[in-house]
Amino acid sequence: MITVAVDAGGADKGAAEVAAGAAEAVRSGDIRVILFADGNQVGSVPQGVEVRHAPLSIAKVADPAAAVRTSPDSSVVQAAKAVASGEADAFVSGGSTGAALAAGVLHIRRLPGVHRPALALLVPVPGAPVLLLDVGASTEVRVERLVQHAHMGSAFGQAVFGMEKPRVALLSNGEEPTRGTPEVIQAHALLAADERLSFVGNVEGVGIADGRADVIVTDGFTGNVALKLMEGVSSAVVNAIRTAASADARAAAGALLLKPALGGLRDQLDPESHGGAHLLGLRKVAVVPHGRFGRVGYGKAIEIAAEAVRSDAVGRTHAALAAAGVLRGS
Amino acid sequence: MITVAVDAGGADKGAAEVAAGAAEAVRSGDIRVILFADGNQVGSVPQGVEVRHAPLSIAKVADPAAAVRTSPDSSVVQAAKAVASGEADAFVSGGSTGAALAAGVLHIRRLPGVHRPALALLVPVPGAPVLLLDVGASTEVRVERLVQHAHMGSAFGQAVFGMEKPRVALLSNGEEPTRGTPEVIQAHALLAADERLSFVGNVEGVGIADGRADVIVTDGFTGNVALKLMEGVSSAVVNAIRTAASADARAAAGALLLKPALGGLRDQLDPESHGGAHLLGLRKVAVVPHGRFGRVGYGKAIEIAAEAVRSDAVGRTHAALAAAGVLRGS
Repeated sequence: MITVAVDAGGADKGAAEVAAGAAEAVRSGDIRVILFADGNQVGSVPQGVEVRHAPLSIAKVADPAAAVRTSPDSSVVQAAKAVASGEADAFVSGGSTGAALAAGVLHIRRLPGVHRPALALLVPVPGAPVLLLDVGASTEVRVERLVQHAHMGSAFGQAVFGMEKPRVALLSNGEEPTRGTPEVIQAHALLAADERLSFVGNVEGVGIADGRADVIVTDGFTGNVALKLMEGVSSAVVNAIRTAASADARAAAGALLLKPALGGLRDQLDPESHGGAHLLGLRKVAVVPHGRFGRVGYGKAIEIAAEAVRSDAVGRTHAALAAAGVLRGS
Repeated sequence: MITVAVDAGGADKGAAEVAAGAAEAVRSGDIRVILFADGNQVGSVPQGVEVRHAPLSIAKVADPAAAVRTSPDSSVVQAAKAVASGEADAFVSGGSTGAALAAGVLHIRRLPGVHRPALALLVPVPGAPVLLLDVGASTEVRVERLVQHAHMGSAFGQAVFGMEKPRVALLSNGEEPTRGTPEVIQAHALLAADERLSFVGNVEGVGIADGRADVIVTDGFTGNVALKLMEGVSSAVVNAIRTAASADARAAAGALLLKPALGGLRDQLDPESHGGAHLLGLRKVAVVPHGRFGRVGYGKAIEIAAEAVRSDAVGRTHAALAAAGVLRGS
């Protein structure tokens, strides 16, 4: 039985929607959820979901990281503490990445030797699964973080997504080793010399899902812009097709016939169907869904958190970093 | 009559394809082209296109910027010199941005007070035209460049794309003024305090074409990754739809009916139909098409270059920078 501590404080659609997602996730029978939420908002919950009354949400405050330090009774801090104490095995907190990150670092704490956690997720682009990190945990660019994140992504992809010897690439503005910011160029040289990693060099934005890399590493600023750009372009294209499909009766009939075949694509492009991003580098599993997710996305977030616990993603990632000699102080 | 100097040295499809594009562009009667290419490869050319034999291409060398300095007889340098001397009004060079940039800076030269040129182009995303810059002229991030590029983009969008008082935004990992790299945060503060500019704050990747901004400013590393990502995601989505459309007879029939309505979208997503990027900040108009463009893309590149000359984009941009007091030394 895996216990997941879920913070409902940042959910745009409210605690009842998160509770419905939790109900979905516990149905398999091997997941238990402790839900930190305003108890008056939750409604009825099934067996397997326990509600802890935590009406204070800090997801929408201006400086959630500061609020984490000063609000021990907030839902996100309570959820993180439940994981830190061992009562729960994994942490799920959506809405404010800043709050989830701060609560995670403060209470669950970083793995020894890890510089900074990274947010990693499967890109919402058609094609083979590709893990992108960091998509927004930190906007500071440092060579040693890019290198550590490359190893973290590789180990995590192997543990959780069954990637065999993942091909790791750096996101850059050209494929040559000399292209990129000074930090990317230096990280490239270090990664290329590392035989423990299957490093395939730089990929450009156009190569985000062309099958050349399983894990793509970038800094949190570029990664966040990239992730949201993918979502923006996908939805702009899908909306444009929808508009075209209502242009006339002929197009509408065509769209109706085509629709069933597009179902799989719709799922691939929908961030909610992936459950959100994994926050790597903490001592326990942590998952950050979008605050706008509904029951489907929160349910999926709880499931991928449990899956990461099952596959010992944290232990395997830390062991890989140690073996690669890229932990701080090693 | 506007004369455009065209370097065919970097065209993947060869000089004859560029010549065919030039033939298309001169058909209107008010454009003349001087084509710098291997004369033996060009084939027949119509009236209005003059071929200058320049068989040496440096577009594919490892360090095109160095090659520009040492190869005065290369096609890109000859084309830039024709513009610098006043023989031609605009410069078109595809294939190697590094070579075009180096030849432009060395021979056409920067506008007085401009820190660095920027590559600007209309994003290949459905929706209202949005000008993105810098998409790859420089990977170094500097506050004063972001500020200057904001004014350059605004003035250029006004001059060439008829944007009235363009709404200018910074690309960042969050909308709040405190989000982004230290350089983005500083640039935000400076731009927000500038009343001559219609600055609308930060946009995230997801807002690339949602109608909130006409001009989006970022550094050349992030911009290049972003541009190629848009192309990659668009083509991945379009390919996935194509695959879905061949899943079965029903889907194929639907796609056939829908196809005519999708024609406009196909054009919007096709980088070739935009003609390439404008290189802003030089003393003359310069346009950089993709090296993989065929006659359509090169023809369009020549046309948008002529259009920028007609609208005095360079003079108006420089005047706007001077009025804003953001030229170096002012």
